[in-house]
Amino acid sequence: MKTFQHELVEIDERRLLRRLDELAQRGTLPSGGLYRPLYSPAWSAATELVHGWMKDGGLLTRRDAVGNVWGRVEGSRGGRAIVTGSHIDTVRGGGALDGALGVVAGIEAVADLLERYGRPTRILECVAICEEEGSRFSTNFWGARAIADRVEVDEAQRVRDTEGTTLADAMRSVGLDPTKIAQAVRRDIDAFVELHIEQGPVLDAALERLGVVTVIAGTAHLDVVVRGEPDHAGAAAMDRRHDALLGAAAMMLAIAKIAGEMGAPAVATVGTIAVEPSQLNVVPGVARFSVDARHSDNRQRTELVAEIEKACKLVGRERDLSVDVHALRDRPAVPMNDRTTETLRRAARAAGVEARDMTSGAGHDSQILTAAANVGMLFVPSIGGRSHRADEATAAEDVVLGTRVLATALRELAYTA
Amino acid sequence: MKTFQHELVEIDERRLLRRLDELAQRGTLPSGGLYRPLYSPAWSAATELVHGWMKDGGLLTRRDAVGNVWGRVEGSRGGRAIVTGSHIDTVRGGGALDGALGVVAGIEAVADLLERYGRPTRILECVAICEEEGSRFSTNFWGARAIADRVEVDEAQRVRDTEGTTLADAMRSVGLDPTKIAQAVRRDIDAFVELHIEQGPVLDAALERLGVVTVIAGTAHLDVVVRGEPDHAGAAAMDRRHDALLGAAAMMLAIAKIAGEMGAPAVATVGTIAVEPSQLNVVPGVARFSVDARHSDNRQRTELVAEIEKACKLVGRERDLSVDVHALRDRPAVPMNDRTTETLRRAARAAGVEARDMTSGAGHDSQILTAAANVGMLFVPSIGGRSHRADEATAAEDVVLGTRVLATALRELAYTA
Repeated sequence: MKTFQHELVEIDERRLLRRLDELAQRGTLPSGGLYRPLYSPAWSAATELVHGWMKDGGLLTRRDAVGNVWGRVEGSRGGRAIVTGSHIDTVRGGGALDGALGVVAGIEAVADLLERYGRPTRILECVAICEEEGSRFSTNFWGARAIADRVEVDEAQRVRDTEGTTLADAMRSVGLDPTKIAQAVRRDIDAFVELHIEQGPVLDAALERLGVVTVIAGTAHLDVVVRGEPDHAGAAAMDRRHDALLGAAAMMLAIAKIAGEMGAPAVATVGTIAVEPSQLNVVPGVARFSVDARHSDNRQRTELVAEIEKACKLVGRERDLSVDVHALRDRPAVPMNDRTTETLRRAARAAGVEARDMTSGAGHDSQILTAAANVGMLFVPSIGGRSHRADEATAAEDVVLGTRVLATALRELAYTA
Repeated sequence: MKTFQHELVEIDERRLLRRLDELAQRGTLPSGGLYRPLYSPAWSAATELVHGWMKDGGLLTRRDAVGNVWGRVEGSRGGRAIVTGSHIDTVRGGGALDGALGVVAGIEAVADLLERYGRPTRILECVAICEEEGSRFSTNFWGARAIADRVEVDEAQRVRDTEGTTLADAMRSVGLDPTKIAQAVRRDIDAFVELHIEQGPVLDAALERLGVVTVIAGTAHLDVVVRGEPDHAGAAAMDRRHDALLGAAAMMLAIAKIAGEMGAPAVATVGTIAVEPSQLNVVPGVARFSVDARHSDNRQRTELVAEIEKACKLVGRERDLSVDVHALRDRPAVPMNDRTTETLRRAARAAGVEARDMTSGAGHDSQILTAAANVGMLFVPSIGGRSHRADEATAAEDVVLGTRVLATALRELAYTA
């Protein structure tokens, strides 16, 4: 048994890479990149494709009440299930690996284990989670929340896409019944393991090939409104102006400085900005921008947000501008399960690799599933740290390595004596 | 004659103020402020109103080929005409005086002169210029350009409003024939005098009541595109980012600093900004903003623009961002006519006021009409420097003073022996 646990599991590398290519044909945009929004035709085509692969692997398949696709092998001793997977949807203009890697690698790992080691002692499952990105509806983590019993009452009736279609109507359009969402809840999962691309530059820059996530950063979203005085761009002297956009500019630089000085993993981003009246020859009277601030430590995230708010107010006072900072959202950091993470570390060592302990700045299905399972998360490098872009990429050998380590961890979890 | 020239002309103050109020009823917006875009129903109502006032003043009236409304008194000795006026259109959400003051004061001054001093020796005219603000069509100074023969071939067919209507179609909708635009050209104007609100804070802050414009600032408009790399707001470390918006923020602050350090009358304004992809959780890959840079001295405006471009490029190099600065427009400064300006100064002295010599940062019909006449421009204070706003205001006694000084200047020009 000792020897067995130290072997790196073999997989069908060619099939893995071919399937990733094939999945990347579902939802291609004319302008480049992929778009597989929840319950769209491209999404349906992708879920049917992975459904077929699960069947080919000899797994018992089913589509749950929200459209998550599951493949299952019954364990000889029953008990709680060991699950792997990731999300099948993409952002608009996204790449071939975000979500897709964890889905395809999960199917590959489970099918290969079944083929090479026979029936597991524990129930072993792979899953293609229907939605994580929030790229169609004004909600996200839909699939994982359905599994973890975190969907809100009437959420499907309330939430709409930009064309006004409700989630409920979109469900019906693909043959799902929104009154049955609760049937997707799973209370019988022991461990959930997710393989994902890092989406950041850390592993690639350090020339390291594997990371284990110890914590997924908490995220605060702020809405900042700066009010000055609109003025004539020609007639208003520079020293008499109350330019809301100049105030916002000073705030944005201060925000980046605060995050930079706090040091990694603190990050703060101004991703959107708008001014009023937004005319070439009028000094902006109002500037409004968003702040996304993250940290893996809850106390430090709170401090980061407080510092940002303080800096905005200070700039406002200096420039005689009114400043309103409104918190849109504040999600705490989510630690991964120590035991599952240690299993991933051991599996990496079977490949001769010491996995780097990492914070995930990005959100993942895993953070939601901590409510339902002992979760561990494995990262492979993103070349150049590129993410949510058509050219996101991971070296083929790292895709293969990550999948083999995933399979090795699943073997430890599902083939216990 | 000497004594006569030193008297401040009397006017019908009540009628003047009442008419300004009445004109401010044409084109009121439900949300507050006025909107009288060119060739709109509100614009037609306003031009009919002032047409009636010109007739009531005993003037010979006509509407020219682009819709400028003229009122005329034939001079006893003929020759080239003495003209006063301003524009009848407004920005969206504008106030009661911008343009309107010069129109109503012009009618009042000419009518009062006629009534009190009889027929002038020179041809004396007032005019309500159809358009200056550029608030409907993507062009401006339409009325003054038609007078000064500065309309481009096919401009009326080419230029459209936001709904796609061409200027030519809009002209036809109010009974004007776009094939006859050239008939609006005037080659027989000697002097043009315009009374206008300052639209800036200089007179109000200095507690001065009258200004004479010596030069209208030149204006450069730039389009700046900053390109970095879009990135994941959670996964991309602060020190690895190429955030286009942060670069733009540093540029905007540098631009304001350059104009501030160059000193008045240098001004520079970033009035519009947009980012891509404009998502709360994505580091902006592209930021695009406008710059409006003005100075009364052409060499210094050129220097201001060069410094702005240099600063943007420097920030780009420091932050590893690509920067494109594209000049959309570069209009030189326009000096007013010395002789006409001196006439305005003398008229102010008749009221016991030493008019302040001023640069106009804002553009005016006067700058266009320098191509056709010896132009002088008189300013009254804008309370708090407010402009292009519903609450723009000038004290009633300054409105009256400005109109009396205008009338006094016109008397000097039109009642010469």
